[in-house]
Amino acid sequence: MLGVVMYAPGDVRVEDVAEPKIAKPTDAIIRLSSTCICGSDLWPYRGADEIGEPFYMGHEYVGIVEEVGDAVTTVKPGQFVVGSFFASDNTCEICRAGYQTSCLNREVLGTTGRAQAQRMRVPLADGTLVATPDVPSDDMVPSFLAASDVLGTGWFGAVAAEAGPGKTVAVVGDGAVGLMAVLAAKQLGAERIIAMSRHKSRQQLALEFGATDIVEERGDEGVAKIKGLTNGLGAHSVVEAVGTQESMMQAMGATRPGGHIGYVGVLHGVELRGDDIFMSHVHLHGGPAPVRRFLPELIELIWNRKIDPGKVFDLELPIGKAAEGYRAMDERRAIKVLLRP
Amino acid sequence: MLGVVMYAPGDVRVEDVAEPKIAKPTDAIIRLSSTCICGSDLWPYRGADEIGEPFYMGHEYVGIVEEVGDAVTTVKPGQFVVGSFFASDNTCEICRAGYQTSCLNREVLGTTGRAQAQRMRVPLADGTLVATPDVPSDDMVPSFLAASDVLGTGWFGAVAAEAGPGKTVAVVGDGAVGLMAVLAAKQLGAERIIAMSRHKSRQQLALEFGATDIVEERGDEGVAKIKGLTNGLGAHSVVEAVGTQESMMQAMGATRPGGHIGYVGVLHGVELRGDDIFMSHVHLHGGPAPVRRFLPELIELIWNRKIDPGKVFDLELPIGKAAEGYRAMDERRAIKVLLRP
Repeated sequence: MLGVVMYAPGDVRVEDVAEPKIAKPTDAIIRLSSTCICGSDLWPYRGADEIGEPFYMGHEYVGIVEEVGDAVTTVKPGQFVVGSFFASDNTCEICRAGYQTSCLNREVLGTTGRAQAQRMRVPLADGTLVATPDVPSDDMVPSFLAASDVLGTGWFGAVAAEAGPGKTVAVVGDGAVGLMAVLAAKQLGAERIIAMSRHKSRQQLALEFGATDIVEERGDEGVAKIKGLTNGLGAHSVVEAVGTQESMMQAMGATRPGGHIGYVGVLHGVELRGDDIFMSHVHLHGGPAPVRRFLPELIELIWNRKIDPGKVFDLELPIGKAAEGYRAMDERRAIKVLLRP
Repeated sequence: MLGVVMYAPGDVRVEDVAEPKIAKPTDAIIRLSSTCICGSDLWPYRGADEIGEPFYMGHEYVGIVEEVGDAVTTVKPGQFVVGSFFASDNTCEICRAGYQTSCLNREVLGTTGRAQAQRMRVPLADGTLVATPDVPSDDMVPSFLAASDVLGTGWFGAVAAEAGPGKTVAVVGDGAVGLMAVLAAKQLGAERIIAMSRHKSRQQLALEFGATDIVEERGDEGVAKIKGLTNGLGAHSVVEAVGTQESMMQAMGATRPGGHIGYVGVLHGVELRGDDIFMSHVHLHGGPAPVRRFLPELIELIWNRKIDPGKVFDLELPIGKAAEGYRAMDERRAIKVLLRP
């Protein structure tokens, strides 16, 4: 079968790789209906993360169950399922509290995820996978694929920032996750949603997803603009969907005292000064999004066509052209690239 | 009248100082029933904060209203009132959200507070002061004084850490604020309360206030002990009542994924690494406690003798002996010193 392998920064190849096999009785094998390239795949692609041995890419997936291990009871061959980037048992005390990405038995589907391929093995299938009511029509598949990571992550950001009725929500970052946070804030009932973006096509998508205001400025100027839109107070809720020192400081500055910051951009080299956070009076929460917590709700919204997060994919390629997809995302020509296996 | 003035590290003097006067129509003058020395007063006393000109000490106070400005409407001469360390209008949007210490018109009663004296001026009296139902008996005065700062601060720490029914709460720090956080956690219905302390007298007081467990270890050993008491998961809620890098790391380590840290120790030189907070999955909240938010509730609990936070004062001196009180707290011979004006 075909699978995507990263050899070195900028060097991604599609190769004939081994078929996955059931390794533990709790595993399932799925045939992917679609997969995609993540913003976080660009860290190694750009040389920001070390690459030792060549490794298999992909951790976003939807597909049809082909085979399950002996211990799997809730997922059946033939079902269309959505999973996410951490496998979790969904039964431990941490999972039950809604933090499946900190599951006591979690398995990180990073380099072992191998989701940019035609088939993949999913560990802890009962806890990890959620089936849709029936096999969806093709036009819905991109939206379910979005739920697997970027929608679930943006949603967690909005929930962590306590977006809701009567709230003004600002979103720092106009990547796929930031755009999904805009959609989430809208669904959660936010009154006003400020998207921070300087790219026309992304601004347009933000507006389609529910943004009421666009702020193009960054840093201190961006903060001043947000304050200007909120009686000088700052937003009630700010989603941080980038992960740099600058974006985090922008989020801190844009949040009113007593407000909430939901950070879902993987924090790279960020340091928070105690004095700053102490005097800011903000709430801070975030981390690896427990997408599993939200999957049942997200699947229902998509199934009933209440939301259309699949619009975030603005380039679709056969998996054989994955390298072209990486280039397009690296050069910011595409927001998010869907791969057809 | 007598007032406490700090000249230099270790040099605190009681002097004949000018009587306070109404400066703005929103001011009140109160005659102090009692005042006290704060843990934060030890920062300049120990040379950790710069001292320029000699300055007046004190920001914790209860007393009888003697005079009010023309614009004051809710507070009357003769009433016994409790205030706190920030004056706030209690009407702006930030105050209404419960963050009176970030009030848009706040005045910090630090060096201008002058509460370690026989009389003081309180700005924004209507917003800042809360009257008790009647003038309380003498034995209740220490408890109302505790509400002015340490109880209100410990309470905010417990609320920020989301202490409540079914929760295991750990408290880092056995100073007055930490001990009050234990009392608050108990009142808020916490199931289990772990006090981290290595001092017998403070452990005893923590147990009286509601602690169910004592952990003497610090740092990694302390974290391991807390995990051992919580099925390896960590506490649901951790109150950080010290403010150092070590204590903050101890709090982070002792909190389970999805748990809450309430930090009320003034963070001195603390830096939080983005990676640590991202992967920890904790909620972080805290800052200068909006004591005013809690005063009506705390006053009612004290007035009805449901709580006795005044027990935290283990040394009582006439104001003329304030220097002795500073020494006792500096040397940790006293937890908290009450001064009789």
